[in-house]
Amino acid sequence: MMLRGGLVFMSDTRTNAGLDNISTFKKMKIWEEPGERVLTLMSAGNLATTQAVVSLLDERSKLPEDRTPSLMKAPSMFQAACMVGDTLREVIKGLREGGQRADSGFDATLILGGQIAGSAPRLFLIYPEGNFIEAGEDTPFFQIGEIKYGRPILVRAYDPDLTFASAMKLLLVSFDSTLKANLSVGAPLDYFCYDVDSLKAEHIGRVEADNQQFQTISTQWGNALKQALDTLPDVALNTD
Amino acid sequence: MMLRGGLVFMSDTRTNAGLDNISTFKKMKIWEEPGERVLTLMSAGNLATTQAVVSLLDERSKLPEDRTPSLMKAPSMFQAACMVGDTLREVIKGLREGGQRADSGFDATLILGGQIAGSAPRLFLIYPEGNFIEAGEDTPFFQIGEIKYGRPILVRAYDPDLTFASAMKLLLVSFDSTLKANLSVGAPLDYFCYDVDSLKAEHIGRVEADNQQFQTISTQWGNALKQALDTLPDVALNTD
Repeated sequence: MMLRGGLVFMSDTRTNAGLDNISTFKKMKIWEEPGERVLTLMSAGNLATTQAVVSLLDERSKLPEDRTPSLMKAPSMFQAACMVGDTLREVIKGLREGGQRADSGFDATLILGGQIAGSAPRLFLIYPEGNFIEAGEDTPFFQIGEIKYGRPILVRAYDPDLTFASAMKLLLVSFDSTLKANLSVGAPLDYFCYDVDSLKAEHIGRVEADNQQFQTISTQWGNALKQALDTLPDVALNTD
Repeated sequence: MMLRGGLVFMSDTRTNAGLDNISTFKKMKIWEEPGERVLTLMSAGNLATTQAVVSLLDERSKLPEDRTPSLMKAPSMFQAACMVGDTLREVIKGLREGGQRADSGFDATLILGGQIAGSAPRLFLIYPEGNFIEAGEDTPFFQIGEIKYGRPILVRAYDPDLTFASAMKLLLVSFDSTLKANLSVGAPLDYFCYDVDSLKAEHIGRVEADNQQFQTISTQWGNALKQALDTLPDVALNTD
């Protein structure tokens, strides 16, 4: 999510290969060179694919003298998105050409956001085909994975002037709606609030399922919604 | 939706065969024998299938001396649900055996609710296979079609003691979330609020897209949600 004050990322940690095979994996990866660049990558889809993409990008970023292209050397966020998209497409193509098949396919979708010194923060949604779109004023946030349950509250309550604290509440409520509806999404939730122009990775954390504040939000939200409904005008019922 | 005061039904009217071929059809059918029974059927899925099902059930209900079984003669809501389920399965089976194929399939899902004199109101969700499940205290409402966007608000704000006026607001807000997200769902919205034990079909109507009250609800809901978010406690951000 893009705000005037920066970028806010949140991801769940549940992966599954069927209802009876669920695990917890972090789906948010942050690369940082303080004062120079901060990049965040979140993933949805086939875990083997997304882990391979992150590992490849990570290897290349750690040994820039040996391996190019490197995310840490990309001259712009656009170039970084191209690099991530190419890597994603290569990984998926490699698996398909190997003749492997999986019931659920090897596809994955990524969100890349961050800032490189000298430019504004940017946010991209990267498709399995390797192409991508960028967030702007009209579409200031992206969702990947199980997006539908949590979308209406984002559409309604998003405001570019949200503080990090309010944005966190909004994202937690959005995730909570999805957690309650779909077993493939599960806590803990990882977050990262990036302060515009800070060029450092702080405000990184994890909200556990038993986090007291999260539980309070979850329980109070139902009541808050009911009260919100009460404030709306009645609709005249046809009495025919 | 089952309430202590009765049953509330709402359906949209948009059907589509692709983004460039959309039409308006009523998806709610009501059969009534005042003082004896009221049955409501709502449909989602292939329009040809659901119209065939409704036409077959309707023909049989109009000429009960010639055609059996008839919905108007079913001794119980359970038997009525069996009858609807059988008809649905037959129609789908007939289309498949005819060798026809459609990109989107011939499947349809139905909601049947109503009351027959001497019994309580009952509400069923009928699958394309012809089998069905019944709403109860734990699951007091059903959705069919594009269910995800509108579900969280229903889960949170449903209360069996809702008045019809409040239930209508809840359903309009739920539909509005879906209308804003998916072009395959569109106004006008048909509704029917059935008073328990009334055994007559009143409070039937249609909310047009330009209905002033609906537009007010739609615009005020965003603000109401933002205020509801503000009432929630902040989550402490990690300052590492």
